[in-house]
Amino acid sequence: MGGDHAPGSVVAGAAQVLKKYPNTRFLIFGDENRVRPILSKFKALESASSVRHTDKFIRDDEKPSAALRSGKDSSMRLAIEAVEKGEADAVVSGGNTGALMAMAKIILRPLPGIHRPAIASVFPGIKGETIMLDLGANVLVDAENLVQFAVLGAVFAKAHKGVTTPSVGLLNVGSEETKGPDHVRGAAALLAKVEFPGKYHGFVEGDDITKGIVDVVVTDGYAGNIALKAAEGVGKMTGHFFKEALRSDPLSLLGGALAFMALRRFKKKVDPRVYNGGVFLGLNGICVKSHGGSDALGFASALTLAVEMVKDGYIAQVAQEISHLMSQETFLAEGAYGK
Amino acid sequence: MGGDHAPGSVVAGAAQVLKKYPNTRFLIFGDENRVRPILSKFKALESASSVRHTDKFIRDDEKPSAALRSGKDSSMRLAIEAVEKGEADAVVSGGNTGALMAMAKIILRPLPGIHRPAIASVFPGIKGETIMLDLGANVLVDAENLVQFAVLGAVFAKAHKGVTTPSVGLLNVGSEETKGPDHVRGAAALLAKVEFPGKYHGFVEGDDITKGIVDVVVTDGYAGNIALKAAEGVGKMTGHFFKEALRSDPLSLLGGALAFMALRRFKKKVDPRVYNGGVFLGLNGICVKSHGGSDALGFASALTLAVEMVKDGYIAQVAQEISHLMSQETFLAEGAYGK
Repeated sequence: MGGDHAPGSVVAGAAQVLKKYPNTRFLIFGDENRVRPILSKFKALESASSVRHTDKFIRDDEKPSAALRSGKDSSMRLAIEAVEKGEADAVVSGGNTGALMAMAKIILRPLPGIHRPAIASVFPGIKGETIMLDLGANVLVDAENLVQFAVLGAVFAKAHKGVTTPSVGLLNVGSEETKGPDHVRGAAALLAKVEFPGKYHGFVEGDDITKGIVDVVVTDGYAGNIALKAAEGVGKMTGHFFKEALRSDPLSLLGGALAFMALRRFKKKVDPRVYNGGVFLGLNGICVKSHGGSDALGFASALTLAVEMVKDGYIAQVAQEISHLMSQETFLAEGAYGK
Repeated sequence: MGGDHAPGSVVAGAAQVLKKYPNTRFLIFGDENRVRPILSKFKALESASSVRHTDKFIRDDEKPSAALRSGKDSSMRLAIEAVEKGEADAVVSGGNTGALMAMAKIILRPLPGIHRPAIASVFPGIKGETIMLDLGANVLVDAENLVQFAVLGAVFAKAHKGVTTPSVGLLNVGSEETKGPDHVRGAAALLAKVEFPGKYHGFVEGDDITKGIVDVVVTDGYAGNIALKAAEGVGKMTGHFFKEALRSDPLSLLGGALAFMALRRFKKKVDPRVYNGGVFLGLNGICVKSHGGSDALGFASALTLAVEMVKDGYIAQVAQEISHLMSQETFLAEGAYGK
């Protein structure tokens, strides 16, 4: 029930994913009276789905604390509980991000050793896609949190990009060792020493995110959220000025029409709907947040991320890697963990 | 002598600015044997300029500390000293940013009361231009530093945008009062109380920078540098994919050719050369950094920012406003200043 176009975009998105992954089964939580009529238009999906009726749902403007208190029997809570009970392998929601993270933390619990679950997302880049985390779940983190994010992100990169040893960069304001805040320099010192399921690349800067030179960019939720939104803002401004320029004379309009196929190819490369999905990492269960404004294609992208993680056995892999990280003396010796 | 295309781009840029501001006079510091032949091609500029010969210059990869130690008689140092001596009203350089800031801090000195000068720049936006600072001079700042940045930026917005009461937003990860790191929330509390030469708008998020909804965006150098570079990266990626798409079939190439004028108008709107110039604010003198890779148009943009500040009497205005800020009990009572 979450998102501007739910439940229509949710059901239509699931139908797209079922074509690609025909073995997927869906539990759809929400108002049966609204879901059923839409579902009946997608016969294959209908027979691959169960609808769990509830007329309660979390509003987009509800505070996480309020959602926790009064969200019992809401579609969001029931969907997360289905993962906790083992009825579902993953939960995908287009609803309130803060409420989803708060509920997922309470119900699914962080993995052993993880104090701060993070939000990751996939970014397009010139040389290939990059995964970045944290995008805003944790404003303040320490060096140890960042090293755990590196592990969470590297195992996710294996599932999503199919790379064996993902390269991991730390987002900073320069590439020299002496630059940046303490928690970033501390994480760099640790990543150079510990064993983790990736290859430490060194510091990367803001413009490296869209170069695609590393598989994973690790940062705190403060810089990560600001970078993500600044990037979105430039995308929107570029689109605005481009349309405005094309519309301002007839020859350009004709040119734009002739270049229609190229513009479509271009759009596909940077389509925010294709890069839709904030993946919550560090929880004992798979939880993906689809953008609230997304349509069927956007919701399908978010569902696809969840399916990839399930197929790759993300939770078991990452639990093992975090446990391995926590057992290393170089990591524990830093002493700051758990403070 | 600083930048990839110096001294050619510097001289040609000055020639452009002289046409717009015919009363400007130029002191050109560098290798006379290289500067004179180029200058002789611009007759009007030649008679409006003096060349101060030196064969020493600061390399782009030189550390600020090394530049301070051994940069005596370098073109950069001599140019800054000309401002300190009152021979020039402003200095513009395309050279090493770190060295320029370090030397400017030593030679021009911060304004009374300012502990941390900042780097500001102008960004294009849908509703108009936005000035953002700090872009990387200070990774760690406190609430009082951010409030001073608000004053520095607001007075600059008056010079550059010609607005009487500039609106100032604080960059954060959300618009709710309870969100964000301590220094940002602390600055918000102060800005709501103190008298300063602008209007406090509240928190803004990363995507608000390019919306152009405020005249000034205030942030620390960590988030500011990452946002700036993330935005640059998206611009480069968009350009890359767009050209690639247009080139991939003949019809699109033709379409692109027909839309040539529109594409030119579009480019002008977001041209990084037009938005070229990191303005150092908080010093007792005007110092503008042009992008190292910029051409004549880029250097002219940086020079224009300096001319606007001189014409508006930036230094006298901002010194008075900082002094007024420091005299306010609400500001001093916070107790954190000077710690």
